[in-house]
Amino acid sequence: MSGKKFIEEKLRTVGAKVGDVIRVAKKDDKYEGVMMPHHEFSDDDVITIKLKNGYNIGVEIDKNTEITLVKKQEEISKKSKEIPFDKNKPTVSILGTGGTIACYVDYRTGAVHPATSAQELAFSVPDVFDICNVKTEVVYQMFSEDIEIKHWQKLAKSIAKELNNGSNGVIIPHGTDTLGYTSAALSFMLKNLSGPVVLVGAQRSSDRPSSDAALNLIAATTVASKSDIGEVIAVMHESTSDTSLAIHRGTKVRKIHTSRRDAFKTINDVPIGIVENGEIKIQSSYRKKTKGKVSVDDKMETDVSMIYSYPGLEPKDVPDKKGIVLVGTGLGHVPKKIAPRIKELTEKGNVFVMTSQCFFGRINMNVYSAGRDLLKTGIIACEDILPETAFVKLMWALAHGKNRGEIEKIMKTNIAGEISKRTRSDAYL
Amino acid sequence: MSGKKFIEEKLRTVGAKVGDVIRVAKKDDKYEGVMMPHHEFSDDDVITIKLKNGYNIGVEIDKNTEITLVKKQEEISKKSKEIPFDKNKPTVSILGTGGTIACYVDYRTGAVHPATSAQELAFSVPDVFDICNVKTEVVYQMFSEDIEIKHWQKLAKSIAKELNNGSNGVIIPHGTDTLGYTSAALSFMLKNLSGPVVLVGAQRSSDRPSSDAALNLIAATTVASKSDIGEVIAVMHESTSDTSLAIHRGTKVRKIHTSRRDAFKTINDVPIGIVENGEIKIQSSYRKKTKGKVSVDDKMETDVSMIYSYPGLEPKDVPDKKGIVLVGTGLGHVPKKIAPRIKELTEKGNVFVMTSQCFFGRINMNVYSAGRDLLKTGIIACEDILPETAFVKLMWALAHGKNRGEIEKIMKTNIAGEISKRTRSDAYL
Repeated sequence: MSGKKFIEEKLRTVGAKVGDVIRVAKKDDKYEGVMMPHHEFSDDDVITIKLKNGYNIGVEIDKNTEITLVKKQEEISKKSKEIPFDKNKPTVSILGTGGTIACYVDYRTGAVHPATSAQELAFSVPDVFDICNVKTEVVYQMFSEDIEIKHWQKLAKSIAKELNNGSNGVIIPHGTDTLGYTSAALSFMLKNLSGPVVLVGAQRSSDRPSSDAALNLIAATTVASKSDIGEVIAVMHESTSDTSLAIHRGTKVRKIHTSRRDAFKTINDVPIGIVENGEIKIQSSYRKKTKGKVSVDDKMETDVSMIYSYPGLEPKDVPDKKGIVLVGTGLGHVPKKIAPRIKELTEKGNVFVMTSQCFFGRINMNVYSAGRDLLKTGIIACEDILPETAFVKLMWALAHGKNRGEIEKIMKTNIAGEISKRTRSDAYL
Repeated sequence: MSGKKFIEEKLRTVGAKVGDVIRVAKKDDKYEGVMMPHHEFSDDDVITIKLKNGYNIGVEIDKNTEITLVKKQEEISKKSKEIPFDKNKPTVSILGTGGTIACYVDYRTGAVHPATSAQELAFSVPDVFDICNVKTEVVYQMFSEDIEIKHWQKLAKSIAKELNNGSNGVIIPHGTDTLGYTSAALSFMLKNLSGPVVLVGAQRSSDRPSSDAALNLIAATTVASKSDIGEVIAVMHESTSDTSLAIHRGTKVRKIHTSRRDAFKTINDVPIGIVENGEIKIQSSYRKKTKGKVSVDDKMETDVSMIYSYPGLEPKDVPDKKGIVLVGTGLGHVPKKIAPRIKELTEKGNVFVMTSQCFFGRINMNVYSAGRDLLKTGIIACEDILPETAFVKLMWALAHGKNRGEIEKIMKTNIAGEISKRTRSDAYL
């Protein structure tokens, strides 16, 4: 006998319900923690336990597994919800925005709901308090696919305020869907950072087996409180295991898997560093934090689109917008029948920039005559800037350049690490 | 003394010019072949030599390098341009379409120009004739970013004709920009394949140091003449070294780097196999070739667009097309303000399908309420189908389904290996 019914009977015998603290003993292993609700994707013979350190573990139950009731949910004393303060520790600000990582698991009930305060979020991973003092604020609470330009602007102002008020660093729990867009936007908007601005997300929420929420938040806290990085970065699982986390530059990071915990990768560069066993190990150069005042330069032109090229793309598929990021093929191509449309709109004053749907590698529109012809329409080739980062940068450039020349100059200048240095291999085409 | 002037003087001394056969001797190495024109991206102290086997090699010249003139270009006897025939060898058809791989290097002059016949192309890599007999035809000659639906249809008919006329397999040299779109389109259009249909490209043309053209074409020829695969596949460098080449399923292959030779990857699956030292090593299951007649089912609805989602996407950015492939964020999301537009167009009879801009991983619109709300608009979730493959498949499905139900059924049915089997890890969200 095994499966769901078997487990239900076993739990009834010991009198344990979801939310109670139980102990599960197998031949060699013993686990104690809050029993979580059964997850629809878990196997029938698995119980998920939230351990004290915030991690979940799925334990397979068979006839030799011993289950003991440690404490009924009702008896668990309500912990004080006051955030501790230690004057010898650095202080970081956690600015909540929503997303999977903001799904809060109540320790007493095991229930999952969106954290209504960043304080709740911090309490869902109490290890954070061992590292630093925490100031919390919810800036907004939404699915990240709904985040718009105005939200970036609000967030940038909140970050600057926290840093200018003395926080060592800022942590921004964020939905993973558009985390890379937000990290790029903040990279262009924030100047003279006096501490790390760390975006962090979770691919699997706190109630799921193998959630990455706790470990990601702890690593983000380590970087925000201890590092001297003065950039906007993202800290996420480096591999599918729990051993190391990567520190990605905000303009270079991209989500390249729908569900894996190591979905975030630095594209066309190496990550700034990794976090391993609570230690930060630097791998490449970065901008150091400054002692001055953080300023916000968040003007953006919102009339900008991304157009993905495909066989059969017609001139009428290219809209009349102030800015268009072409996500072209290969080294930076679109069908040649599109060229007259680009020329017409460019002469009107619109700005087109070229990126690649390969995502990895650099644009080079000089290799083939087709690319050279496209350049003649006035398209700006975006080197190895990610399409999403080019999109954000173009919005920023259009609001900051007084004329086409200035806008082009901004697009071609490496402002926030978005353009990598050319290497010898870039030339071997 | 080194650099350009030094080399020019050295060549003048021995009387060697571009196109001549020279021998270059360094301490331990000796190379003989046609001297290629100096490439703008090559270092000044490098001479590129096209070896007899078709590979290029860049040799650094210093004062200890000996250069000997072997044969003046004018003396090189004109080789017969008649393709050899051996009745004991299999026959493959090479159908030219254009692209970098079609850039033909004249052995006698070292000059590079687009091959005006597939025959020229075959002659640029004479090793091909050791493997099989070759029939050649140029179907079209263009940059692959300009390829449209009608070109796929013409190509499908030509392929079927060659196989039905007795060819063992068909090789399609193709520009790399849209190679993946074409391989997906052919995968849906061709039925009951009696031999492998092998797309092959080159990331660097034959005149460049480290060109991949020769090795890719030789491996493609090996697969087309020797394997029992009855699918549309792509054969390209597996790594940056020249040791192995990957055999990718036509619906699963994607170009993920603008310039690297190993730019093509099988996404969300393992490649069908590899080619190593002329041997085919199978890694996963595939459809075997049949003995019947190949048929073509190439009807396509061309009123289809791909729309890439981004922060700030507005309902008006979603055009009124019969089919729309949404390249959404994460598990399959777009801003919620787009939902009413999708609903309105779906009720009118248009069809929306959802893919992910992560490219790796599977769509799952049931994890978050936002996804479930989007599903209510009638969007079809495309499992782990690549956006580009979903685009091609939707064009095909719209032309083959009589109503929405049938179109949805086609999109959800694994027709040409485009949908991978769900694994346990897909469920752990």
